[in-house]
Amino acid sequence: MTQIDEVLAGNRRAIARTITRVERGGREAHTVLAQLYPQTGHAQLIGVTGAPGTGKSTLVNRLAKAYRDQDRTVGIVAVDPTSPFSGGAILGDRVRMHSLSGDDGVFIRSMATRGSLGGLARTTRDVVAVLDAAGFDVVFVETVGAGQSEVEIADAAHTTLVVTVPGLGDDIQAVKAGILEIADVFVINKADHPNADQTVVQLRTMLNMDPHMGDWRPPILKTIATAGDGVPELVDAIEEHYVHLASTGEKAQRDRARARSEVLDILRHTLLSRALDGLPQAEFERVIDRVGEREMDPYAAVEKLLKQKVA
Amino acid sequence: MTQIDEVLAGNRRAIARTITRVERGGREAHTVLAQLYPQTGHAQLIGVTGAPGTGKSTLVNRLAKAYRDQDRTVGIVAVDPTSPFSGGAILGDRVRMHSLSGDDGVFIRSMATRGSLGGLARTTRDVVAVLDAAGFDVVFVETVGAGQSEVEIADAAHTTLVVTVPGLGDDIQAVKAGILEIADVFVINKADHPNADQTVVQLRTMLNMDPHMGDWRPPILKTIATAGDGVPELVDAIEEHYVHLASTGEKAQRDRARARSEVLDILRHTLLSRALDGLPQAEFERVIDRVGEREMDPYAAVEKLLKQKVA
Repeated sequence: MTQIDEVLAGNRRAIARTITRVERGGREAHTVLAQLYPQTGHAQLIGVTGAPGTGKSTLVNRLAKAYRDQDRTVGIVAVDPTSPFSGGAILGDRVRMHSLSGDDGVFIRSMATRGSLGGLARTTRDVVAVLDAAGFDVVFVETVGAGQSEVEIADAAHTTLVVTVPGLGDDIQAVKAGILEIADVFVINKADHPNADQTVVQLRTMLNMDPHMGDWRPPILKTIATAGDGVPELVDAIEEHYVHLASTGEKAQRDRARARSEVLDILRHTLLSRALDGLPQAEFERVIDRVGEREMDPYAAVEKLLKQKVA
Repeated sequence: MTQIDEVLAGNRRAIARTITRVERGGREAHTVLAQLYPQTGHAQLIGVTGAPGTGKSTLVNRLAKAYRDQDRTVGIVAVDPTSPFSGGAILGDRVRMHSLSGDDGVFIRSMATRGSLGGLARTTRDVVAVLDAAGFDVVFVETVGAGQSEVEIADAAHTTLVVTVPGLGDDIQAVKAGILEIADVFVINKADHPNADQTVVQLRTMLNMDPHMGDWRPPILKTIATAGDGVPELVDAIEEHYVHLASTGEKAQRDRARARSEVLDILRHTLLSRALDGLPQAEFERVIDRVGEREMDPYAAVEKLLKQKVA
């Protein structure tokens, strides 16, 4: 049995090793993904994004358990450097996460958040593809929601949850500025805070003013993730959105958009690697020196490098 | 007098128009930048990054005034969608910002945070180059600090301020996970909060544990930006760091690293545009369809597209 067959059969050790190979990138990763790709497209992908401290991980933990109670298997990819899944949070959180470990129906992988951004988005997608091919029914991708790239990662999901907490106008502003458009479901976590209802009203007002709103109106749900309150309702909302996607043809649209951005990312990366491979290192460094000393502007430098490559 | 000459002479209208041309990208932007680039390299670049609500903009506002009091001109580039400079914050903040307007020695530009990330980092650098060429002595780049890309934008500065506020362990964790390495100066803003000193101690402990620490030990400064408290000391710390960079040769090193990442960004972008220009649109869409339907994996799709281009 090859490692690929073992992944398809759901062997945990093979999955872990394959993810590591995929993360390493390069030709070997491509080979693996080419073999797995035809078996993907079955998992329900759920993005969970929000600022640090909003309780995203605790919420993902609760959601994962809720799906397990429905006998569905769950993959979790944590891209958030502050997530306990990624080892970034305080001890209490990490201990809490342990409640998922020991369950063979759950596979958790944290992503290194070092390195180039484009690279991170691409690797995250590839890791999700491995879990999808391995047969996990639901795959969560947890990201910190302030950066555009993290938003892009979450946006590759079928359903994106934007998690916020009650508080100052600031939080709402932050939501408004960055991630209003990508939310399929809003979650006001820590809803035992006295300002929770006010936050719901503010959000709803903003949503009502949004001219880009399609026929899906993102519901706003209140949760207290630490206690599990509101989680069954949240699962219902996610499922309702998934049914909506499928019935309106938007699922196919999103899948195609994902395919497009995936191909463009890989194209960009491949073109750069090949161009750099074709350039003599010394010449490249000489051009960088000249740009650093302002003798040449960076656009002219690129023209020069590209001409060299052809010559 | 050409528009370029007017920019070099500091004409505000010409600067604003040139920035717009640069933001639009394409060949025209390259032409402009090629002409301005030899005149850059004189501005002191200060990155200011931190989570929404830490008071970054108010701090930049205060710092700008302090530099103006020293008769130095100031450019401000706001990439943060929650910044009042970008029009994203609550009314009170925006009113406060008006205290800088009407001063010809200050130029404020906010960046659209839509669109691709790589694009945003590149455009931000180009806008900074225009302000640098226009002769502004100090240029601030304000970004929200949670995403890696925003960190990359701030990292293009000579001195990067990481702004945080006293509070829960969570905040410190977030700093630790993402942006410890990029801080040249730490700012604990809203330092009238009772936990301020505790936050200083936590940060100092973390910094002392960092094995990557060079010969510059990032100072930790307390400020109350709304009242201006601690701002003169912060200016001193920034200047001290700048002198350190120059005297150790690290400034030249950072300038070269910036040149390198600039060239690589433009190279990546140029290669992709050219490749896409060379592909028949219909064929490209057909390949995307096949990937969307999982008949072809995205890596194979890229191989196919690249072969087509050459043929």
